[in-house]
Amino acid sequence: MAHNLTQKILAAHSTGPLPAAGEPIALRMDQALTQDATGTMAWLQFEALGVPRVKTDLAVSYVDHNTLQMGFRNPDDHRFLRTAAARFGAVFSPAGTGICHQLHLENFAKPGATLIGSDSHTPTAGGIGSFAMGAGGLSVALAMAGQPYVIPMPKVVRVTLTGSLQGWASAKDIILHLLGLLSVKGGVGKVFEYAGPGVATLTVPERATITNMGAELGATTSLFPSDEQARQFLAAQGRAGDWQALAADEGAAYDEEVTIDLNALQPLAAAPHMPDNVVTVASLAGLGVDQVAIGSCTNSSYADLAQAAAVMQGGQVAARVDASVNPGSKQVLAMLAQDGGLVTLLQSGMRVLECACGACIGMGASPVSQGVSVRTFNRNFEGRSGTKDANVYLVSPLTAAQVARQGQFTDPAGWGTPPAKVSLPATPPSIRHLFHFPSQEGSGVEITRGPNIVALEMFAPLGQTVEAKVVITLGDNITTDHIMPAGAEITALRSNLPAISEHVFGRVDAGFVARARAAGVGVIVAGENYGQGSSREHAALAPRHLGVRVVLAKSLARIHRANLVNFGIIPFTFVYAADYAKVAEGAMVKVNAQALVPGGEMLVEVQGAGQIAVKNDLSPDEWAVIRAGGFLNHVKTML
Amino acid sequence: MAHNLTQKILAAHSTGPLPAAGEPIALRMDQALTQDATGTMAWLQFEALGVPRVKTDLAVSYVDHNTLQMGFRNPDDHRFLRTAAARFGAVFSPAGTGICHQLHLENFAKPGATLIGSDSHTPTAGGIGSFAMGAGGLSVALAMAGQPYVIPMPKVVRVTLTGSLQGWASAKDIILHLLGLLSVKGGVGKVFEYAGPGVATLTVPERATITNMGAELGATTSLFPSDEQARQFLAAQGRAGDWQALAADEGAAYDEEVTIDLNALQPLAAAPHMPDNVVTVASLAGLGVDQVAIGSCTNSSYADLAQAAAVMQGGQVAARVDASVNPGSKQVLAMLAQDGGLVTLLQSGMRVLECACGACIGMGASPVSQGVSVRTFNRNFEGRSGTKDANVYLVSPLTAAQVARQGQFTDPAGWGTPPAKVSLPATPPSIRHLFHFPSQEGSGVEITRGPNIVALEMFAPLGQTVEAKVVITLGDNITTDHIMPAGAEITALRSNLPAISEHVFGRVDAGFVARARAAGVGVIVAGENYGQGSSREHAALAPRHLGVRVVLAKSLARIHRANLVNFGIIPFTFVYAADYAKVAEGAMVKVNAQALVPGGEMLVEVQGAGQIAVKNDLSPDEWAVIRAGGFLNHVKTML
Repeated sequence: MAHNLTQKILAAHSTGPLPAAGEPIALRMDQALTQDATGTMAWLQFEALGVPRVKTDLAVSYVDHNTLQMGFRNPDDHRFLRTAAARFGAVFSPAGTGICHQLHLENFAKPGATLIGSDSHTPTAGGIGSFAMGAGGLSVALAMAGQPYVIPMPKVVRVTLTGSLQGWASAKDIILHLLGLLSVKGGVGKVFEYAGPGVATLTVPERATITNMGAELGATTSLFPSDEQARQFLAAQGRAGDWQALAADEGAAYDEEVTIDLNALQPLAAAPHMPDNVVTVASLAGLGVDQVAIGSCTNSSYADLAQAAAVMQGGQVAARVDASVNPGSKQVLAMLAQDGGLVTLLQSGMRVLECACGACIGMGASPVSQGVSVRTFNRNFEGRSGTKDANVYLVSPLTAAQVARQGQFTDPAGWGTPPAKVSLPATPPSIRHLFHFPSQEGSGVEITRGPNIVALEMFAPLGQTVEAKVVITLGDNITTDHIMPAGAEITALRSNLPAISEHVFGRVDAGFVARARAAGVGVIVAGENYGQGSSREHAALAPRHLGVRVVLAKSLARIHRANLVNFGIIPFTFVYAADYAKVAEGAMVKVNAQALVPGGEMLVEVQGAGQIAVKNDLSPDEWAVIRAGGFLNHVKTML
Repeated sequence: MAHNLTQKILAAHSTGPLPAAGEPIALRMDQALTQDATGTMAWLQFEALGVPRVKTDLAVSYVDHNTLQMGFRNPDDHRFLRTAAARFGAVFSPAGTGICHQLHLENFAKPGATLIGSDSHTPTAGGIGSFAMGAGGLSVALAMAGQPYVIPMPKVVRVTLTGSLQGWASAKDIILHLLGLLSVKGGVGKVFEYAGPGVATLTVPERATITNMGAELGATTSLFPSDEQARQFLAAQGRAGDWQALAADEGAAYDEEVTIDLNALQPLAAAPHMPDNVVTVASLAGLGVDQVAIGSCTNSSYADLAQAAAVMQGGQVAARVDASVNPGSKQVLAMLAQDGGLVTLLQSGMRVLECACGACIGMGASPVSQGVSVRTFNRNFEGRSGTKDANVYLVSPLTAAQVARQGQFTDPAGWGTPPAKVSLPATPPSIRHLFHFPSQEGSGVEITRGPNIVALEMFAPLGQTVEAKVVITLGDNITTDHIMPAGAEITALRSNLPAISEHVFGRVDAGFVARARAAGVGVIVAGENYGQGSSREHAALAPRHLGVRVVLAKSLARIHRANLVNFGIIPFTFVYAADYAKVAEGAMVKVNAQALVPGGEMLVEVQGAGQIAVKNDLSPDEWAVIRAGGFLNHVKTML
């Protein structure tokens, strides 16, 4: 029988036969990655599991988020991660080496391999045919401990690309187009598999831009076939041996189909404040711009930056614009130094910042008050930039460079001839020696902890009845940035749960923490797509610390739902969406936990609204996890 | 009569004949510079003076301190500075272009010109023969408004250099040697004028390292002659026309003399926590190192970084070390990109950060807890790194690179052959076009203010009697970092006096602010050299906001004393140092202001200690300023 690419890779990694869509499938993970913002907790959890050595073929611990190191907390965390990697057998990538997804693509990602990462943009590696998923830190820790990773069997969407990109359209515009078409919840429970004649026209970094931002669709992952483009990319990286041809079988079946005519695409932008709020760049002509930022795991490859440099050649950043570049890796920056692109960028007035996530994760480069900021990133959630009233637009590097020169959006029809497509040099400078590869034996390595690294909190099991107060009611598309804000000051507390919990919902509701504490046991009520965005498990862990035991929403984002389970919070959805309006903040909710059936429906008692029908999509195992009070409690009996 | 170089330049800029040492001399300022951390306040003050246009030949507003832009405050300040510069006729240097002193040396500093800057390391320009002084922002604003700058006529120390640097010794070791010899208060009231056969062996960037860190001696400024080295440097920068020969006359007289035999110098380090706590690098052999940081206005020139790259060539940063480089300017970084040095640094594992002050001013790169940090900076005050219990050593770039490779201090005797001396290329890439040069006419420019920019506070005049409580008693060598800490979070509040005042003495005495507020009117009591360090006027302004009207110390640092006067605080010193011990915290102090004679002594009533003799070195004008409540009150009647 003909298989699509997803089916092929999942079949090769499943502990059983492929189930129907939506049913759980347990997958063997070949590779794992962590980054520092989620990784400190993930490695504390791995340590708590008591497994002496990482069991995946490869695990890499990257430091790319909190690289500013404001005070002792971040550098202490980095030292903890370095020593934990040496102890447990992971590769360590020090701060400033680059952004995890760009580095992983260059150095480790393999066609056909499964990858789990404690970062929502882990699907970047799908650009080279790796089946790569973002997950909470605990899920990654469990995978590194050798446990299979369980997901609902995804539906597979075939995205057929025809034609080739023309003029100033670029890979970013393909994924922005898809986001405009399908919305930020259009990919939930799905894999986007790219196919068709347009695929061969896209380089691996272009493909990675698309799979990276597939995360914004809410997708499980996105996947390109492994072909001649993939072979060339791996060969240039000195990894020809990691290549294998991989494609869907002729005549394979798909759950859904989308076709995109690349010839017809034009430069697009995601307008404030959602990545699916997509408009043409032409429609924004005349809008003045205060800031331009080029970089992030979406668009910080050599080709991205070299093309931006080509646009800046002979020109200069407009006086009103503060423009910066964060290269994706030291290899990228070294290539730009060697080909003259860096000098062009410097002489154009671009600021050259560290090879790191930078402004995308709120590490500086906030816009001016009420400013218009144009970024090549993947998220433009309100306030994520660090400036609450700023307006962030997401665009390609080509568009960003044009806007930087002109100080405003203009119609691409007037931009003249676009720069030539950029390929990797035949032998890019290698930076592989900068990774700390672990010794065969790590048991003698002492793990160094700073005073900010607080021991893990073990939570109480669930009682037979949950009586809880509604501590907040929220609308649709609440992101993990709303729940647990990032930025240098708050993210520095990621290994200190009591301290970071003081900031839960801090940017949207200053009274939340006090209310949750007063309630003792709490319920969060939300609309559609609750918990979209990053994989940060602190968006579940910190509310749990504050007593939240139930989330009741119209729908839930995949990674966040898994994080709720991992920390013992019941993820309910409404059977009837209209009931959402009946639940008021402050109402008491009573859940008879003994009556809960995994995958079933039940009635809960809501003060002022009577009985309301709720459902869960928990597996029996997941329900056991919640009853135990969370995965750490549960799993210690399993390993 | 034979004149030394100081006398020549001062005579050419004095409004009268040269007075005796210690007597006030009013000097015409040719150039002025501000940086963003002190500059927002300085430009608000300039605006308040009501002068439509800068009256110095040149004024440059640099953004180099708060370049991280965590939240809207910094970018709003930068926009304010950009628009204020355009309005008032200053050159504007955007964030990321480089560090003010490096950029000023490359682009604007002139032999024989006077320069006033709102940064204590303004004497860097003395490396090319400019008479350059650090001052509080208000003093700079007044100079830009055309007022002469009044200083006590300095004593002049002739520093005779013989021989030439050998082996791994470098310019940094010359100034460290002098600091070890003379201490951080050894230069108060003095100009250090370099002379002798060793001068010709030093390039302008090497000289600038020495004059820069002359600030740590407490000196008024430091000065090199303008000779063939200066001519070559200016010619390479396309500024041959700015050169003129300048040297002391044969047989000129000096107040003091010091001779340094360059042949005998070896690599030195300033050990924690003072720049004058100087030891040999050899004596530190075996001390493990956690962090290395190369950069700052002291040592971020092309030669500094190219030599560091040469040391790293073929080697790698040790696993335990977090090592970073902040280039001094985009010109420096562009040269490193062109000569291959940047790729060497990247491939050695060095982190490449922005062309900015960076960690030196507390913008990230804090060391690990209890860490040993080795820095090419100019200050190692306790806590300044952002990690309270870190130990910071100040060294040359050559030493820093060696330490980075080895992960510990080692004896320079084992370092082999040092890299060759590095000269500027004949035609370095120019970045002059990145400055925003003002139009002839700026009255139409609208100055843009963010919500963090709070209007200036006008203070009340001094009463006939001051009754005040001692709100803190302090030891010797209290720095402006102790008084008004820096770091990204606090420095972001520099244009918001009420907000930043909450942090006064925050790192040494958490109860200070509440005590000062409760006291209403306060006295600060301190030991020797109170207020050493940076030029930040917030170290006077914020205590004044909290009610401080008197400082009583054994001795006062020059710039801080001027800042106290500018904001209406009486700077008393003890006539008898032994009285210091008699004044207790909480004691009431009564000063009969009507009885104060400028430059005289008087008795003040101290609760529990009786009458204590104090003196002041105020000029009659300065006393008028204090009585008026500060310079802004006073000067509005003068202009």
